[in-house]
Order: sequence, then C-alpha cells, then structure tokens
Amino acid sequence: MRTGKVFLVGAGPGSPDLLTLRAVRVLGQAEVVLFDRLVNPEILGLAPAQAERIDVGKRPGAVDAQPQILEIMESRARAGLVVVRLKGGDPMVFGRGGEEWLHLADRGIEVELVPGISSAVALPGLAGIPLTHRGLATSFAVLTGKAAGGTGPDGARYAGVDTLVVLMGVSERRSIARHLIEAGRRVHEPVAFIERGTTSEQRIMIADLGAVESGEVEVEPPAVMVVGQVVELHSKLRGEIPQVWRDQMTTQKS
Amino acid sequence: MRTGKVFLVGAGPGSPDLLTLRAVRVLGQAEVVLFDRLVNPEILGLAPAQAERIDVGKRPGAVDAQPQILEIMESRARAGLVVVRLKGGDPMVFGRGGEEWLHLADRGIEVELVPGISSAVALPGLAGIPLTHRGLATSFAVLTGKAAGGTGPDGARYAGVDTLVVLMGVSERRSIARHLIEAGRRVHEPVAFIERGTTSEQRIMIADLGAVESGEVEVEPPAVMVVGQVVELHSKLRGEIPQVWRDQMTTQKS
Repeated sequence: MRTGKVFLVGAGPGSPDLLTLRAVRVLGQAEVVLFDRLVNPEILGLAPAQAERIDVGKRPGAVDAQPQILEIMESRARAGLVVVRLKGGDPMVFGRGGEEWLHLADRGIEVELVPGISSAVALPGLAGIPLTHRGLATSFAVLTGKAAGGTGPDGARYAGVDTLVVLMGVSERRSIARHLIEAGRRVHEPVAFIERGTTSEQRIMIADLGAVESGEVEVEPPAVMVVGQVVELHSKLRGEIPQVWRDQMTTQKS
Repeated sequence: MRTGKVFLVGAGPGSPDLLTLRAVRVLGQAEVVLFDRLVNPEILGLAPAQAERIDVGKRPGAVDAQPQILEIMESRARAGLVVVRLKGGDPMVFGRGGEEWLHLADRGIEVELVPGISSAVALPGLAGIPLTHRGLATSFAVLTGKAAGGTGPDGARYAGVDTLVVLMGVSERRSIARHLIEAGRRVHEPVAFIERGTTSEQRIMIADLGAVESGEVEVEPPAVMVVGQVVELHSKLRGEIPQVWRDQMTTQKS
C-alpha cells in the first residue's frame, strides 16, 4: 500500500492570493483536507472536487476536539492518503502546528510543513505599520493576550521589545496596557487595533496606551493589537492601502 | 500619461514556490524590477523578459546606496511605469520597506505592499522549531544581533519573551548569550543556528546558551539564531524535514 503523508499548510491571512505556490500545489494533490472555520471557501476550492473536506472548526456540529483532529489525520495517513491540514496564517505561530507535527512524527507518519504568511506580521504591514523601522524599532514580539495580560505584572517580561503584536488580546486590552505603562512604556505611546483584518469589514483604530487602559477604546474580536512608535507611520502610509481596504477604514483618534 | 506605481513585494525565504500568488501576478506586470543580491534568479524570471532589471545588491559595480534606490523607484514611477521592489522575506520586517514606502508616499507616489513569508518565522518552522508551542512558548520576539547584543546588559529588555529569533547576530552571538544568561535565562537553554537557510548548503547546529557564550559554537553568517525551549523539538521533528534539506543537515551537540 502507498504511504500516506500529512502536509501542515499555512493558508495565510485570508485572501486566496496570499497563498504560496507551494500551498496551491499541495492542495491540488490533497485527498483529505482538514480546515478551520476561518479558511476562505475559495482556498478550499483549490483541492480536487473529490477530496474529502472535513470542517474541524468550532461551529455547532463540527468536529472540534484536538484529539479527534489528530486521530483523523493519523488514520487517513495510515490509510495511504495525502492529508492537508490547512491553518490560517503560519502553522508554527500560535497554530498548534508543532503539536500536530509532534503527534504524527511520534507515530512514524511523514509530515511536511508548508509555511504561510503569518497574520501577526502581514496585517500590521498591510495597515501601513512596519514591525521594524530604522530609528523607531529594531525588534518586535508576538504574544497572546493571555501571555501579555496575565494576572501579574508581566509587562516587565517583554516591555523592552520595541514593537509588540498581541493576538487574542481584545478582552484583556486594559490590563495589557496597564502592565506596559507600569513597566515603563509611555502613556501616549500609540496603539493600533486591526479588527477583522483582510475582510471587507476591516476597521483600524488608533489610540494610545493611556486611552486603552482607561477603557476608552471599543474593539471587537478578532483583532490584532499593535503597540509601538511604528504605529505612527500608519497615518502617513495608509493613504496607499489598497482601495478595497480604504473604503472600510475607520480611524478613531483619542 | 499613465500613473506609475511601486509594489513592495516580499519574495519570501528563497525558494520560488514560497512566493505568493499575488507576488507572481504583480511580478508578471512589472516594467521595472529592483532586486537584492539574494533573490533567486528563478524568481526574477517571473517578470516579463522586456522588464528592466536593476540589481541593487552589494556586489561590486551594482547600485547599492539607499538614496539611489529611492531615486530610481521614484523616477520610474513618475515616468508612468509599474515598478516592483523585490525584497527577501517580508518587506516590513527588517527590510526597510517602511522607509521606502514613506519616502514614496511623501512624494505622492502610489505604493502597494505585497507581504511575503518572513524568514524569521519560516526558517525555524521548516527546521522543526515552532516559534510557539503549548506548554513551552506563548510568545516570540524577532530582533537584530545589534539590538540583542549591544554593548550593555540589553538582555533584560527582551529576556522574558519565550522564544527569541536573532537575525544578523552571528558575530555577536557570545555577547547575546552572555546578556541572556545574566538576565536569568538558563545556561542549558537550547540554541539553534540555521546557517544559509533554504539553500542547498543549509546547516543546523544545536547547542546551549553556555556553549555559545564560551565560544564553542562555530557558525558562519548568514544564520538565524533561535533561543528557547522550542529548540528541543527540532530533534523530534526534523526527521520529517523535506529530503533536500535533510541531506545537508549537520547537528552538533554540545
């Protein structure tokens, strides 16, 4: 029997044309595709019509438990099939890609990573916020809201990094801002929230740490939070954001 | 006269098939391509044969000054041409993309960013080192060797981030390791160097902070340095690295 294989494929931040050529090629060979809720249907359409498509997102009725995802990948690969595990962004950045790879490698199943464009990098960039910029930032960090907000004064753990990108941090934004101010970041340091990035409902809000801390900034998840001087470049560069974005954009000064 | 435009295009970590579909489409429309020394010739081949190709890398005889790069982009765009500025990785991550965008936007020239796969994220991933991993790392930072090594005890500024990716840090690796140990990271914390990533000469070396500090680890630039517990996953996952890589791989235990 033919040996199966699992491809961990990064689907990028959303738009189908931000897939890599390698991802398109691998999808075209798929016999089974496991995908998350947020994957664009056009991307799924790149798999052959006869490929089995398995929604492992969190909608009612969908398979959503990680053990089941692992079991499906393992059993299909053992049956000799080419399995594609599609993940938003890059599989190795907050995507549990490492866990899935480890599980499969431990069981002797071949795994190949196809990197994708990480939303943590691309969404700020597309919004006119470079993560690094000569004279403003020579380092950036990406962390979850839980890591950033926590319950203790965790700001000191990472506050020395120039640009901070916080994922899944909307609900803890006040606490994150407070930790950063306590760790020495300026009250007037600019903060951007990129809400529903790359979708037609994208909104970008610009504020500062003080305003975020005091609860003045309304944001709905999913949103990427960016803290740092580089946020100031947004207003200079965003006039050049592609038209489809500009129409939807709201800037809220605080 | 037609209005020109500049596309800042990320070429990804090296392999042509890690370009995005959008980058391929934009390259196909290019009338002028400015490229750096490290861009793969196959990627340049995606531009039309008649497109003007300008090497702005650092080889003798090539145009290499940033003011000249800016001037060429500006003048070609003003002449109504479609200009593609190709950059390794993502243009907004240590790529001076923000500077170039700012310069052009200030002069009323339309700029569009095409994000690319950042080598800082993809090279560790392809080497079997996830930047985040449940139970091991919920944050990562990317910084230059200069930012990381510096002359003072800068380790404290970023040492609380779980996974550190240091670019252009080979020559300062001992100083970086010393700062991290002084800031409380373990002497036996694992470190990986990914030398000449994605090329046929790629080498991966695994050591620990203590060995790096004491000068036991030989590395040649260009190399990406990764510090963190996630490096331990490399030995478990790398058996599944694509064949073309595995052949070239050397693991040096310290």
